[in-house]
Amino acid sequence: MIGIGVLGYGYWGPNLARCFGECEQTRVVAIADFDQAARDRAARRHPGVTAVATMAELLDDPRVDAVAIATPVHAHFEPALAALRAGRHVLVEKPITTSSGEASRLVDEAARRGLTLMVDHTFAFTPAVQKIAELVGGGEIGALHYYDSTRVNLGIVQSDVSVVWDLAVHDLAILEAITPERPVAIAAQAASHLAQRPETMAFVTLHFASGMVAHINVNWLAPVKVRRTLIGGSKRMIVWDDLEPSEKIKVYDKGVTLTGDRDAAHRLRVGYRSGDMWAPRLATTEALATEIDHFAACIASGRTPLTDGLAGLRVVELLESAHWSMRQGGRPIDLSLERKAS
Amino acid sequence: MIGIGVLGYGYWGPNLARCFGECEQTRVVAIADFDQAARDRAARRHPGVTAVATMAELLDDPRVDAVAIATPVHAHFEPALAALRAGRHVLVEKPITTSSGEASRLVDEAARRGLTLMVDHTFAFTPAVQKIAELVGGGEIGALHYYDSTRVNLGIVQSDVSVVWDLAVHDLAILEAITPERPVAIAAQAASHLAQRPETMAFVTLHFASGMVAHINVNWLAPVKVRRTLIGGSKRMIVWDDLEPSEKIKVYDKGVTLTGDRDAAHRLRVGYRSGDMWAPRLATTEALATEIDHFAACIASGRTPLTDGLAGLRVVELLESAHWSMRQGGRPIDLSLERKAS
Amino acid sequence: MIGIGVLGYGYWGPNLARCFGECEQTRVVAIADFDQAARDRAARRHPGVTAVATMAELLDDPRVDAVAIATPVHAHFEPALAALRAGRHVLVEKPITTSSGEASRLVDEAARRGLTLMVDHTFAFTPAVQKIAELVGGGEIGALHYYDSTRVNLGIVQSDVSVVWDLAVHDLAILEAITPERPVAIAAQAASHLAQRPETMAFVTLHFASGMVAHINVNWLAPVKVRRTLIGGSKRMIVWDDLEPSEKIKVYDKGVTLTGDRDAAHRLRVGYRSGDMWAPRLATTEALATEIDHFAACIASGRTPLTDGLAGLRVVELLESAHWSMRQGGRPIDLSLERKAS
Amino acid sequence: MIGIGVLGYGYWGPNLARCFGECEQTRVVAIADFDQAARDRAARRHPGVTAVATMAELLDDPRVDAVAIATPVHAHFEPALAALRAGRHVLVEKPITTSSGEASRLVDEAARRGLTLMVDHTFAFTPAVQKIAELVGGGEIGALHYYDSTRVNLGIVQSDVSVVWDLAVHDLAILEAITPERPVAIAAQAASHLAQRPETMAFVTLHFASGMVAHINVNWLAPVKVRRTLIGGSKRMIVWDDLEPSEKIKVYDKGVTLTGDRDAAHRLRVGYRSGDMWAPRLATTEALATEIDHFAACIASGRTPLTDGLAGLRVVELLESAHWSMRQGGRPIDLSLERKAS
Repeated sequence: MIGIGVLGYGYWGPNLARCFGECEQTRVVAIADFDQAARDRAARRHPGVTAVATMAELLDDPRVDAVAIATPVHAHFEPALAALRAGRHVLVEKPITTSSGEASRLVDEAARRGLTLMVDHTFAFTPAVQKIAELVGGGEIGALHYYDSTRVNLGIVQSDVSVVWDLAVHDLAILEAITPERPVAIAAQAASHLAQRPETMAFVTLHFASGMVAHINVNWLAPVKVRRTLIGGSKRMIVWDDLEPSEKIKVYDKGVTLTGDRDAAHRLRVGYRSGDMWAPRLATTEALATEIDHFAACIASGRTPLTDGLAGLRVVELLESAHWSMRQGGRPIDLSLERKAS
Repeated sequence: MIGIGVLGYGYWGPNLARCFGECEQTRVVAIADFDQAARDRAARRHPGVTAVATMAELLDDPRVDAVAIATPVHAHFEPALAALRAGRHVLVEKPITTSSGEASRLVDEAARRGLTLMVDHTFAFTPAVQKIAELVGGGEIGALHYYDSTRVNLGIVQSDVSVVWDLAVHDLAILEAITPERPVAIAAQAASHLAQRPETMAFVTLHFASGMVAHINVNWLAPVKVRRTLIGGSKRMIVWDDLEPSEKIKVYDKGVTLTGDRDAAHRLRVGYRSGDMWAPRLATTEALATEIDHFAACIASGRTPLTDGLAGLRVVELLESAHWSMRQGGRPIDLSLERKAS
Repeated sequence: MIGIGVLGYGYWGPNLARCFGECEQTRVVAIADFDQAARDRAARRHPGVTAVATMAELLDDPRVDAVAIATPVHAHFEPALAALRAGRHVLVEKPITTSSGEASRLVDEAARRGLTLMVDHTFAFTPAVQKIAELVGGGEIGALHYYDSTRVNLGIVQSDVSVVWDLAVHDLAILEAITPERPVAIAAQAASHLAQRPETMAFVTLHFASGMVAHINVNWLAPVKVRRTLIGGSKRMIVWDDLEPSEKIKVYDKGVTLTGDRDAAHRLRVGYRSGDMWAPRLATTEALATEIDHFAACIASGRTPLTDGLAGLRVVELLESAHWSMRQGGRPIDLSLERKAS
Repeated sequence: MIGIGVLGYGYWGPNLARCFGECEQTRVVAIADFDQAARDRAARRHPGVTAVATMAELLDDPRVDAVAIATPVHAHFEPALAALRAGRHVLVEKPITTSSGEASRLVDEAARRGLTLMVDHTFAFTPAVQKIAELVGGGEIGALHYYDSTRVNLGIVQSDVSVVWDLAVHDLAILEAITPERPVAIAAQAASHLAQRPETMAFVTLHFASGMVAHINVNWLAPVKVRRTLIGGSKRMIVWDDLEPSEKIKVYDKGVTLTGDRDAAHRLRVGYRSGDMWAPRLATTEALATEIDHFAACIASGRTPLTDGLAGLRVVELLESAHWSMRQGGRPIDLSLERKAS
């Protein structure tokens, strides 16, 4: 039984506490939050769990084997580092840190100490993303041509981070989960439609060496909620609508076939193919429960988590590059040069 | 009664011929097409109309007061110029020409001779776009924040022009129709997912001095047809779904209100407003019929058409800039500099 | 080449004339309509076709081998009978006649003379209904449990026939096409919401000996157009939404499995099964063209049409029984007794 | 502060306990369930609340001023009667009892003792139904023409009550809430598609003296979940889709206008009107919380609840009549005669 300490009992912390409580390999022993009202809520809902104020207090508790950090992003790095230094396994909310430098230090610390460091890219554990990854990995889709996501709604306009750090981060984490390929260039156009606030809408485009393109449209000031991703492949195409209650994923046997023309090699015939559509049944398991089981299993076995610190680091690197592009009006950033330089 | 000659009887020409035939101010006197089979079809459907092969023959016919040109885009400029030189009014398919240089020459020629030159930006005459223009112009939406359009489907992959010239041109023409503001920068990311073909998907972003952003997502290789535009304003927001049979336009009384905080001027309070939705009834008139009535009225009165040659020129300039950006991997193009330079 | 005479050139007649004109086995030789304006339209669109006023004139024309009747329903019987007596094959709009007595006389007359008598149940020839019939016939759905159709919109309120004769007739014809089973009871509830008009909404329920139930909800005064049918079977279920542009038919691998419980035979375990959904590709052929090819092939070969006079008769019998039930406030009519009596 | 005892802690009981706990006028003092596991769950979630096994124990507790009964329907009557006899106010799950005789006895008992008896017709307290009631009551819709509801899904097939008692009961309760008019006739067609189980699908039709018709289509074995009601009126029409996340209610300014024709009084002109659509903003309050506030307010003030025992009785009478009709193959039942007889 892995003893868990949860830091942060605001919006997401209660979900973590509930799921850690339901997992058979873990039990919540302590919950920390600076806010007295949050501690009171935690105590009411989790009788028998110690409610404290700080990570330091969690780390003083010898029953705490691992910590889950659900504080605002600027308050991820220090408690995570402290926990690793105190020999605890760590699960951190996404994005893992506010900078790639910080993320690297966490990755190094965890590696040096042989501890499990995992980032809470929850979408990677949804039945929908796992099905997409399975279809892509199994070759059903063919070569990936594009990933085109729209993630907009009338959302909470944050005062410290842009819509890219709040919403586009999901798509960057999903891309991590469905393809091993890394982007070679990124560009981001953005605008703020509220005075003195970070960007409220953004369009992020990623290019991959294979020719694949990813496009992410995020907006906090949209009249309707849209969570729709089109995924194009050389063999089939996917429409993923995460708001659909039952058929979130539709696989279309549609596409184009190029036929070489013997007499005129320079002219290719384009044939259109429009076949059946198929909506695979998805499991109804809760993503966070799957993720927490995985965290527990990685701690027990020493295996590398699907969404390890490096995945968190790569996502933060892309967020940084996206912001660098945004600051220059959308100039594309060559990521291959960046990597060589580093 | 204005005598009309139609050049090109392929995909769009028959629609022009039909609508000019039904308009009370015009009559079709001759139809020209290089292809004998097309001429035969024209003759069968329009008994009494002369079927010829070339623009030259149309211009030899003294009954022809105006010509409508529905040939492929590379075959717009020469016949249009010939017609203007022969003193005929001209309606040209969109985009007006393949280059801004050609478009300028047509605009100059028409102006010098006092002839009506109009580009067939059909969407500008749809009840939906006219309603949007009315709402925006009447102040119902407030300051425009964004225009975000998705225009994708499994479409005919063309061999000579990219998806930007084929699909994004619609959105550029619609922007012309709903706001007088001109963009100051443009960037376009694109990719081709078919060997030896022009770009099959593209993302075009336009920035305006007011802070408004337009984003256009076009794709010939999408599994589903989407024609959806979100329009955000400081007062209200619009969702325009052109595939909806009856409620194409929905106006949302939703948004965000900033409230100045007396004691802390640097901190603004964000208030969320979520009110009623309203779908105005749209006229059921055919856009092309409205457009042709307008063309006839402009010829008769000497008024400048809503979609005059200059509108056509501006759209072609943006298409050129978009391609210039695409060729440089999406580098933003400063349009204000361009204009100063010219 | 079968020479065709078309009677009635109002709403549907032009479609018949066009499709007979495009069919390779038939040609339209004459069109009849009482109305001079209709004859003028016919002459303009079909140069070379004789335009006359009456069925008698069509029958005087020796080139006419078969007639298609597209007059209002009260004007079906007499011209159809005259045509059969004159040795012509007959295609009649649905419903075939205003009474089963008339329908029987047409069936007898055609049988006696060895002529083809077909009713224009167009839906039976749509790719959607043909796919459903194929799935049902091939056992994919298992035993049919129900057919539940909603067919409502703001439609033309007719002054002589009720919504049952106008809309429910489609579902009765579709049932004819997808199952050979005949109903044993029918009930219909109806109401008129317009003074001095026939019923504007109705609910028709049919019971079959196998336990299958069909339910038909029709309404001329609905705010939205709905054309949706749920079909339940012991193995799979179908949702047919005829307004969907591309995925009209969805097959759900969903249902309930009864498991006998050894120790308590009177208690059955209900197991719920929720599997994949599948939308088969449908042909894009026009139903009326398929139907007219079939009519021509039946004339040529002497085969019995899929929608022969007997199918038309059975549908009219059900319409009569539905009205009989409506007149008695919805009292169920035992159709097995009716049949025995006759 | 009204002390509440909750009987039954299975599916719905926990919701009642939670909402009574959150209401400022009530507090939960005891929860009763025969099942030890249910009592354990209740004790865990509601520390400080007494967990007992029976209604008798609840009634022995002097802190219990009112009871909420969330047992299966066959176990409503006896505990409700006992509670009233013990001088407690009562809230009962829908349907109130299994027979109108039982419901009458509860109504009488509560009246005699001056106690509040309320039935938990939750839908009557949803923002959607309250908005519909407001629109109908305010004359916005005009005379009600029809209420046409589809309430189907792959639902739990119950072993003791039919789909009419499980699902159609909602629509009968909603009708209670939106119109004071009482039906004069009812008919119900039904079928069971599972051996040895109650009816799994049913069509219930109600006629009202004004000409209004209500139609209720319920089915436990449908492949998709539908919760859609069309409401037609002489002035406007409503589409209520309860599965829509944000625009559950749409009001259509559509309809038909009859124009008297002076010269031919027997011929009325039908004019079609198709205007705007409007989706009013709905409150986001939870129906059950609204209902419980109402229950508490009625206890405090002695006012008659919106969904009092008589409303519960009327709904049960209709359920009984529907079943009587079902047993006779759908024969319409004249409710006006029934009432006179009683």
